[in-house]
Amino acid sequence: MKTGIEIAADSGPGILHELTGVIARYSGDILSVEILDEKPRETRIVFEIDLPDEPGPLVVALGRLPVVHHAAQVDTMERVYGKRILIMGGGAQVGQVALGAITEADRHNIRGEHISVDTIPLVGEAELAAAVRASARLPRVKAIVLAGSLMGGAIEQAVREVRAAGLLVVSLNMAGSVPEAADLVVTDPVQAGVMTVMAVADTTKFTVERLKRRVF
Amino acid sequence: MKTGIEIAADSGPGILHELTGVIARYSGDILSVEILDEKPRETRIVFEIDLPDEPGPLVVALGRLPVVHHAAQVDTMERVYGKRILIMGGGAQVGQVALGAITEADRHNIRGEHISVDTIPLVGEAELAAAVRASARLPRVKAIVLAGSLMGGAIEQAVREVRAAGLLVVSLNMAGSVPEAADLVVTDPVQAGVMTVMAVADTTKFTVERLKRRVF
Repeated sequence: MKTGIEIAADSGPGILHELTGVIARYSGDILSVEILDEKPRETRIVFEIDLPDEPGPLVVALGRLPVVHHAAQVDTMERVYGKRILIMGGGAQVGQVALGAITEADRHNIRGEHISVDTIPLVGEAELAAAVRASARLPRVKAIVLAGSLMGGAIEQAVREVRAAGLLVVSLNMAGSVPEAADLVVTDPVQAGVMTVMAVADTTKFTVERLKRRVF
Repeated sequence: MKTGIEIAADSGPGILHELTGVIARYSGDILSVEILDEKPRETRIVFEIDLPDEPGPLVVALGRLPVVHHAAQVDTMERVYGKRILIMGGGAQVGQVALGAITEADRHNIRGEHISVDTIPLVGEAELAAAVRASARLPRVKAIVLAGSLMGGAIEQAVREVRAAGLLVVSLNMAGSVPEAADLVVTDPVQAGVMTVMAVADTTKFTVERLKRRVF
């Protein structure tokens, strides 16, 4: 069973090693770790763990470590924020894609989905390529949308890499080589946002593979 | 120095404990951990670590562990995605706040800031209260915006908790008790997005404390 456990502990090197030792003793498979520094001498750490048994004894064992101030069970991020769609590029177009994606996500979340829509307005080929690459290293990201007027070169290469890593990539119909490298190319930014949400939602039958065209 | 290290390793219980043991031996203070499951038998893990020395020897030591398939230095998420603003509530209003925030973030990111704008359209008092509470457990979140027409009860309580944990909370001017509990109340959703970005950007002199009014 998937469990969230929040811990307040001493700050500094070696703490995570101690905590993960206890979790390993309970055969917990750690799915995610969030480290939140709040105070100079205390760090809050939230684990999401796949456990073979009830989480109670593990929470107690963690709470007994001398470095731990407090341990408690909490909701998992997967349950609260769910799947993520990431929109990046120029502010004007990122905003329009976000409008479509947020409104469409609302319609699915009301029916029990959990989809969040994340954005970053960015300028520059190197910065955008780094953001595309890093998106495959962010938790729970299922799809990215490239929202701009001209993207190619290093960004195209990064798009091919994250597609190989399993991400769906949607591109606005724009100048440059990024549209050629994307799974799906959409001209209207609002529709690009809507289609991306539809593609990752379990509440629809829509998939990119079922489309007869790749460019809209 | 802050360093990103990406590792491909065996999946399963105990792996993180082995990796963090090596990092502790090099006196690395772990700032964040991202765990990405891709293949049945391989997990990718990205650490952001504060190290007293050059990262080279640590990367080599991690690469020599029998459970590790590959280890390499990468950009940190802090450098790529930066500060986060989180907008939550009803789709229509979340979309309008996001428009303002994304366009304003663009203006700051062009001048060297790194601000991303994240959103989740959600319905229900319990779901929203959980999302507000969880926002304080997400990395790099500096401010949240409550975008709706009626919010109170459990959501107000969650707002007070995350403010105590150091988050800036902006609320649309709406029915219910959430506006009373927020740092700043703004009527126009686009302006709410713009002001929130201004409040967290280091590229402006604007701070909420310097305002003579709390409600706009």
